[in-house]
This record gives sequence, structure tokens and C-alpha cells, in this order.
Amino acid sequence: MLLGEFELIHRYFSSPKLQPSRRDVYLGMGDDCALISVPEGKQLVVSVDTSTAGVHFLPESPAHSIGWRALAVSLSDLAAMGAQPAWFTLALSLPEVDEEWLSGFSQGMADLAQEYGVALVGGDTTQGALSMSVQVHGYVTPGAAWKRKGAQPGDLIYVSGELGKSACGLRKAKALLEAQQALPDLAMLNTAEASAETDMLRAYLYPKPRFDLIPILSSRAATAIDISDGLLADLGHMLSASGVGANLDPTRIPCFNKEHGDTSQVFQDALAGGDDYELCFTVSPQRRLELEVSAEQSGVRLYPIGVVTSQQGIRGLHEQSLTASGFDHFKGNT
Amino acid sequence: MLLGEFELIHRYFSSPKLQPSRRDVYLGMGDDCALISVPEGKQLVVSVDTSTAGVHFLPESPAHSIGWRALAVSLSDLAAMGAQPAWFTLALSLPEVDEEWLSGFSQGMADLAQEYGVALVGGDTTQGALSMSVQVHGYVTPGAAWKRKGAQPGDLIYVSGELGKSACGLRKAKALLEAQQALPDLAMLNTAEASAETDMLRAYLYPKPRFDLIPILSSRAATAIDISDGLLADLGHMLSASGVGANLDPTRIPCFNKEHGDTSQVFQDALAGGDDYELCFTVSPQRRLELEVSAEQSGVRLYPIGVVTSQQGIRGLHEQSLTASGFDHFKGNT
Repeated sequence: MLLGEFELIHRYFSSPKLQPSRRDVYLGMGDDCALISVPEGKQLVVSVDTSTAGVHFLPESPAHSIGWRALAVSLSDLAAMGAQPAWFTLALSLPEVDEEWLSGFSQGMADLAQEYGVALVGGDTTQGALSMSVQVHGYVTPGAAWKRKGAQPGDLIYVSGELGKSACGLRKAKALLEAQQALPDLAMLNTAEASAETDMLRAYLYPKPRFDLIPILSSRAATAIDISDGLLADLGHMLSASGVGANLDPTRIPCFNKEHGDTSQVFQDALAGGDDYELCFTVSPQRRLELEVSAEQSGVRLYPIGVVTSQQGIRGLHEQSLTASGFDHFKGNT
Repeated sequence: MLLGEFELIHRYFSSPKLQPSRRDVYLGMGDDCALISVPEGKQLVVSVDTSTAGVHFLPESPAHSIGWRALAVSLSDLAAMGAQPAWFTLALSLPEVDEEWLSGFSQGMADLAQEYGVALVGGDTTQGALSMSVQVHGYVTPGAAWKRKGAQPGDLIYVSGELGKSACGLRKAKALLEAQQALPDLAMLNTAEASAETDMLRAYLYPKPRFDLIPILSSRAATAIDISDGLLADLGHMLSASGVGANLDPTRIPCFNKEHGDTSQVFQDALAGGDDYELCFTVSPQRRLELEVSAEQSGVRLYPIGVVTSQQGIRGLHEQSLTASGFDHFKGNT
């Protein structure tokens, strides 16, 4: 059955999970435009990310994961600015109308949307190669957003979690597919016994934006960025924007699977694997104690990995590891 | 030469035409997110449209036209709500980095952006089939936006210009390509002698959103929609949303090329050709005179084509013409 565009939107994208009642959404889906009343005294924070089959996700992934992930990677940029998520739009390109796929996709997106109460307010569906652009919108108090610019020599550099987990998950997923096995969806991962394997698959298929860090870092972090293109690439952007460099301590980088994996691979995954939706941020030495107390009280583990230097470039790592410079969409992994 | 994503954005999308200084844009391109200070007392109006090569535009179109058009079709949705355009984002998917194409594309987008002072505040570039999602943002006074819902029996139905012109332009463009001729860009159209041919090619390759109608329709139109999917389809959406019908006068529908073309084709183009970025709107009989005086003073021609009825459905046209129900992305033209 070939569904029309309007019926498709109505059937799959108008669930209460995707359309929670929000005071700022004055008019949601269904007209030429959505109408939003941005709360007084708030700045609007905007980010868009495209996920393309075969480039940003495995086309064989469960549709539920593809929907979840497309929203998660965009939301992660809001978290990296310290913004509270509010609403989003979806531009979806589909080769054909596959109702089972659409049902899983919209459900995955809805499951994540519901966690943060974000509303789908509009979008566009077109026929074409499988790909989706999700634009997310959130709010911050004016001046409170963490930018890339603003890191000062002497500031400490932190990351918010283990790195390389998602790269391991991607490798594991490819191995499963090669062995003709289906990839698990969230329900399967939730019922499976906890293991390094479910852990890495979850990191790759169901990343979670780190909004839980906002109260801990708020008014303490000087700069922040999410580590979606790999630590070296994204830290590099932050340092360039700030006109500074960094001295890293390789023994402090929280590598996933450190005890079990091949050391150089583990290090490579952590530095340049990508798809780890953790934050990298800087904090002045004066704020360090306050930050660490707040993190401990919240039960959140933070990892100091180095210090900002006035000399540009990243130092402290073996030369070998520095060739792992992260992902560039038109150059591939280098 | 294979450009990196960051260099690509810097080289082609950071011109002053695309980055005009705007008081509401607190932080534009280059960080994880853009930061916007929505003017106090204004509602934000949001719309996203995807343009895909081979579906929404001819891949052989001049890159300049593709860039212009991708922005124009999104802006037209803002015009249809009565919103002043402000800023936009671009999610661009490219099969390869072709610098000449990118230069033309970004220039076309910049030329239209400059006309309205809209700023490009962010985006994403990915490798994939040629396609672009443009999300536009504008402002309205709360309550002043024209919606699809709100047409009342007895209201007059208007369109803002000749219909079918763009469909003729598309046919002409295809004929030129079949004859191995290149399609003209804006500079060529501007220097060519005025003719029905340049007129229709301009309508298809370089549509202009009808922001000039806002002061004329403001506080006078009850509902409005842009005619991008064809008059019958879009008027149909407006009538359904309002729970009403319409009685149209076929002799009053302003068909492009009425004197020269084949009558049934001319009528088919006007009713269902699509890509005419004119507005269709309703006005109560009490406001009619006021509207027409205002239009005349502004030198803008408006066309009354029928009246809203309590009985649902569209009547007054020959049965034959009613089969032309407009474009559906997953059904094709029906």
C-alpha cells in the first residue's frame, strides 16, 4: 500500500509522545509553518544534523535505533551548549513507504523525545535516498551558553565519560551483520544480560545526550563541545576557536575496554572513533573543586585529561596517536 | 581537490550576503549551535522544506537557480503565514565536492537571502545524493499569523497571481534540455528580451516568495496558504482545515498563457501544475473593499476566484478538471 504524504505524517508522527502539550508551542504540525512563543528572557539555541544511511548509520540497524539516534545526535549539540531541549523538526527522505520501518522509526524517535518532553512541530517528507535532517531547538539564559571559544591557558580539560565505546559498538554491529545476525533494538538490549557487548552496542545504537551534565557544569564550564567526530577533532575545534593549545595526559584518557582490547586500537578508538556523545569541556582551576564536588554529589564521574596551554596544538600524546585526527565528512576517517 | 567540510563552509557559506549583521543573531555559524534572541513580543514562525534532485528540481538546472529556489520555496511558507523572514539553516547533501557548482549554488542562495536580509545561521553538509533541507524562521505579532483554519462560508477566495506559469516553465526547461541546450541562470534571464518564454523559465527557476503581499493582506486575510502543490490540492487543505467547501468560477481563474496555449492544458497547469509560489487566501465580504483599495494603491493585482461554502468539497469546475488533484510526494501527480 502506498500511503500519501499527509496520511503518513498523521499515522506515524502525531502520537502524544511526539506531540506533548507544551506552552511554548502555539501551533504545531499541520500548517505551512509552526508558531512558537519563545519564553521571555530566554535565548533560542538551534542546531541541525543530517543522518544518511551508509554514512552516519548502518542501514541494517533497527528502524527504532535509526529514529532514536537521528534525534539523539542533534540533541547532543544542545547539551553541549548547556541548553534545555524544547522542540524539533524532521526532514525525512525515504526511498519508499515501508510501514513497518516507519512504525519502528517513529517509535524510536518518540521514545527519546518523550524522555525530554521535546515536541515535533513540523517537517517534510520526500522521496529519495534514506536520510533525515533533525533540527533541534532549546533555551538558555542569555549569556549562559557554553561556546567553543573561551578556553584559557591553565584551564583543565575534562571529558564526561568513557571514549571509544561507540566505535567498538559499530565494529561489533558490523561483525554481527557479517554473521547474518540481526542487530538488537532497545527492548532486546534492555532484557539482555549486562556485558561489554551490550554496553558497546547500546552506545552505538542508542546514544543519550548528556543533559544530566547541565546542572553540574552550569556557571562552571568555560567552554564545551560534544565528542561526535572524535576527541582529537572536536577538542581541536575548541582549541582553535579559543586560540590556544593543550597538553594531554594519555594515561588519564578514559578508554573503553582498556583491560581487554588491543592497546593501540583502544587508544585509537578513544581519540578518533567518533559517535561518543560525551562532552569535552574546560574549567578554570578556581572552579575545579566546586565542579568535582557537584559531580560527586550527583553521582556523575568526570575525567580530567589535560590542561589548556598558550602554545597551540595538542601535545603529550605519542606522535602515532596524533595521526588519528577524527572524522571529516568529505575526507573520511584519516 | 577534495575540500574538507569546515573549509567548504568557510569558503562558500560565510559571505556577508549570507551573514548580514542582524540584532537577533547573537551567535551564527561555527559553533555546536546558533544562538538567537527572538525580539520581544514576537512569535517565531518555523518551516522546513527539502528539495531533492530529480524530484523537486531538475539536476541540470544552473546551480545558481538550485540555491535560489531551495531558499525561495521555504521562504514562501513564511510569506503564506504573514511572517517577516529573519534567518535560516541549510542541511546540504552532496555526492561530491564540485567547487564550481558550490560557488553557483551558494551565490544563488545568497542573492535571494540578501533581498530579504535573512541570515544563514547554521547547517550541516554530508555526502549523499544531491538534496537540501532549508529551514526558515520569521516573526509575527502573536495572533497575527494567517492559518489554514478559519475560512467562513461567504468569504471570498483569492489568488495572488497567474497560475500554471511554473508548470509551463518546467516543460520548457525539459524541452531545452532535450534539445541539448543549457538552462539560463538569472543573469541570462535578466539580459534576455522579455517574452512568455523567459517569463515562464523565470517562474520555474527563480520563484519569488510573496512578502510584498503582507502589508496588503495584514489584518484583512482570514486564512492563507501558498500554492506550491497546485491550487486544487492547497485550496483543498485550507478548506478541510476550516471544515468548509468552495464554489469556484472557472472563468475567473487567472491562467497563464490563456490566449496561446491549448485550453485544457492551460487549465490543468493552473489547477494542478504546482510550483506557483503565489498565495491563495480568504477574505470576509466586509473586508473586501478595504483589501482591493489597498492592493490597488500598492499596484498589486489580486484575483477573486470563488466563494467559501458550508457544503464541503470544491464545486463549479468541470468534473474533468477535478481529477487534477495536485502533487503528493509519494503518489506522484495524480
